[in-house]
Amino acid sequence: RGFMREHEYLQCLHFNSLRLPSGGLANMSLPIVLAVDDAAKDRVGAAPDVALAGPDGELLAVLRSVEIYPHNKEERIARTWGTTAPGLPYVDEAITPAGNWLIGGDLEVLQPIKYNDGLDHYRLSPQQLRDEFDKRGADAVFAFQLRNPVHNGHALLMNDTRRRLLEMGFKNPILLLHPLGGFTKADDVPLPVRMEQHSKVLEDGVLDPETTIVSIFPSPMHYAGPTEVQWHAKARINAGANFYIVGRDPAGMGHPTEKRDLYNPDHGKKVLSMAPGLEKLNILPFKVAAYDTVAKKMAFFEPSRSQDFLFISGTKMRTFAKTGENPPDGFMCPGGWKVLVDYYNSLQTEGATAPAAATV
Amino acid sequence: RGFMREHEYLQCLHFNSLRLPSGGLANMSLPIVLAVDDAAKDRVGAAPDVALAGPDGELLAVLRSVEIYPHNKEERIARTWGTTAPGLPYVDEAITPAGNWLIGGDLEVLQPIKYNDGLDHYRLSPQQLRDEFDKRGADAVFAFQLRNPVHNGHALLMNDTRRRLLEMGFKNPILLLHPLGGFTKADDVPLPVRMEQHSKVLEDGVLDPETTIVSIFPSPMHYAGPTEVQWHAKARINAGANFYIVGRDPAGMGHPTEKRDLYNPDHGKKVLSMAPGLEKLNILPFKVAAYDTVAKKMAFFEPSRSQDFLFISGTKMRTFAKTGENPPDGFMCPGGWKVLVDYYNSLQTEGATAPAAATV
Repeated sequence: RGFMREHEYLQCLHFNSLRLPSGGLANMSLPIVLAVDDAAKDRVGAAPDVALAGPDGELLAVLRSVEIYPHNKEERIARTWGTTAPGLPYVDEAITPAGNWLIGGDLEVLQPIKYNDGLDHYRLSPQQLRDEFDKRGADAVFAFQLRNPVHNGHALLMNDTRRRLLEMGFKNPILLLHPLGGFTKADDVPLPVRMEQHSKVLEDGVLDPETTIVSIFPSPMHYAGPTEVQWHAKARINAGANFYIVGRDPAGMGHPTEKRDLYNPDHGKKVLSMAPGLEKLNILPFKVAAYDTVAKKMAFFEPSRSQDFLFISGTKMRTFAKTGENPPDGFMCPGGWKVLVDYYNSLQTEGATAPAAATV
Repeated sequence: RGFMREHEYLQCLHFNSLRLPSGGLANMSLPIVLAVDDAAKDRVGAAPDVALAGPDGELLAVLRSVEIYPHNKEERIARTWGTTAPGLPYVDEAITPAGNWLIGGDLEVLQPIKYNDGLDHYRLSPQQLRDEFDKRGADAVFAFQLRNPVHNGHALLMNDTRRRLLEMGFKNPILLLHPLGGFTKADDVPLPVRMEQHSKVLEDGVLDPETTIVSIFPSPMHYAGPTEVQWHAKARINAGANFYIVGRDPAGMGHPTEKRDLYNPDHGKKVLSMAPGLEKLNILPFKVAAYDTVAKKMAFFEPSRSQDFLFISGTKMRTFAKTGENPPDGFMCPGGWKVLVDYYNSLQTEGATAPAAATV
C-alpha cells in the first residue's frame, strides 16, 4: 500500500515491527523503501504527489503525500544484517548504488505490475492466493520458502508436514510452494530454471499437484538471516498461510569476509518464535533430511547411524549439475535434474563462444 | 535479577523488548550480559551455579542455572549502535576486550554492591528511589538523564518542566536528577567532580533541594543514541518516574570515523515515542536553551532573534574551564563553575609534574 515513511522505517529497523492503530504490533523486519538520488529529490521539490514510471517510461503508479528523508545506509545495513562487512549481495546490488534519500508515501498502483517474462501467471497477489486456498477448500495452509531447486529431501519434508497436519485432524492441508522471485546472488539458480524444475517435480508426482499451489514470491533475497526470516513468514501469513516451515540457518549465508556462517544457524528459528506480531504463527521446525546411502533415498537424518548419511549442499548439487556427474539415485526426480543439467550445459556453451578475455 | 540468557539477548538485539509471561512486552534495548573467556568457560564446565567474586576475590553473588552461549560481538555491536566503525567508546572499553562467550542465569546478590568511593549514599536502588518519592508525597516524578555538569540551561529546563506539571494539576512534582555513574568517555567530566558540581547547584538554589532527589544511575554510557535512550527512559520508569525529559540527540556522539553526527539528532525522540513497552511513558520534549546575550542568562532559544543567542557546547564549556576563562555571566552558578575550574586546574598541576615524555 505504500513505501515507508520515516516513522515506519525507524520502527522496522529498531523493533522489527510496526505499531498498528489498534495499539497492537504488526511484524515488519525489512524496510519497504524507495531510494532516490539528489537530482530526483530536487525534481520532486515540494510536490505532494509523485508519478512512478517503469523502465520504458510508462506510468505505473502514483505515490501520494510523499515524505523524503535521509537514507542512512550504514545504519540500515548494520541494523538489518548485524554486520557492515563488504560483500553482502543485496547491499552491493541495491543499497550501496542507491540514492541518499528515501521517499515514502501512499501508493496508488494504476495497473497490475507485469514482468512479461512468461512467468506472470505464477505471480499471485496475497488476495489471489487466499482466494485459491478457499477455492480448494483448504483448512490448513503450510508455506515453504525456497530459492533453490526442490530435491527429494525438501519433498520429504513437505510431504511429511502434510502427513502431520492430517494427523492433527486437518482434512485438507494445502502446500504453498512459494519460491522467491526477486534478486538472488549470482551463484543461485535463476528463477525461470527453478520454475521449470518445480514444474517437473509436480509432473513427476514428487509433490501432489492436487494439494500444492506454486506461486512466485516477488521479494528480493536479502540474505539477512534472523531478520529476513520474519519477513518470509509474515508475508506468507498475509497470503493466507497459518503454518510455516523453518529450517537451519534460514536466509543465511557465509560471512562475506570471515570463514564462518554469518548467523548462528539456530538463531533464525529462535528469533522467529519470539517475534512481535507473529504470536499466532504455527512454526514447524525443519527436520534435517540427508541422502541415506543404505536405503538409497533422501530420509530424515538419524544420528545413531550417521555414517550412512550423505549431506549434499546446494554448492555440491550445482557442482554435480555443472560437471555432468549424476547425484546419487533418489536425490532428485530425473525430470527435475535434467532441467538443471540442461541449464548448466547452456551456460558452458555460452561460455565457450564468449571471447576468451571475458573469462579473465 | 540476572544476566540475560540467549533468548533474552536475542529479543533485546532484534526487538528492543522482552516478551513477558503475560504476553505483553517490556522495553529492553541494551543487553545486560556477562562475558567470559574460554578459560572461564572451561572452569565453569557443566556446573549449574557459578560464584561471582569482586576485585579482591570476595564472594559477591551467585549466578544460578547458568547458560553459556557465543558472544557474537560484531552482530551485537552492529545491532546496538547501527555501525561497526572503530572508535565507539563503550565497544573499545567493554566489548572488544571481553570474552567470546556470554553467561546468563539468575542472580542472587549476597550483599549490596558497594563502590567505597564516598558516593555510595547516592546509589539508591529503584526500590529505594520509589520509597523516597513516596516519603516526599510525590504525585509526579520527572527524570533527567545527564552525564555532564548542570548549567543554567539544564536548570531552566527542569524548573520549567516542574512549572508545566504544576499547571497540568500535579501538586507535588519531584525531580529525579539522575547522573550516569558508570563508564563515560575520556573527555567527559568524571563522576566525583560532577557529583560535587551537582551539590553546589542545589546549594546555590539553582535547583530546589525540597523537590529534587539526586541519585547516581550506575549504568555505563554506551553512546548508542536511539537504542540507548530507551534504556535510559525504561530504567527511570522502573525507579518510579512517569515523565521523562528527552532532548536533541540523546546518548548521541560524533561518528567515530566520519565528520557527522553518528545518529540523526531527531531519531532518539522519535524512536523513544514509538518503542514497545514504553506506551505509558510521558515524554517531555526538550526545548533548546542557549545563552541570551541580551538578557544575560540562559533562556529558551527564540528563532526570531537568533543572533542574540550563544550556544555553548560541552566541549566549549570544558575549554573555558581548562583555560581559566569565565563563561558568560549566568551560564552556570559560581559554586558549580568553581568545581570545574578546580578540577581542570588539578589536572594541569598533575600534567606539569608528570615526566615530559608522558605528554608526547
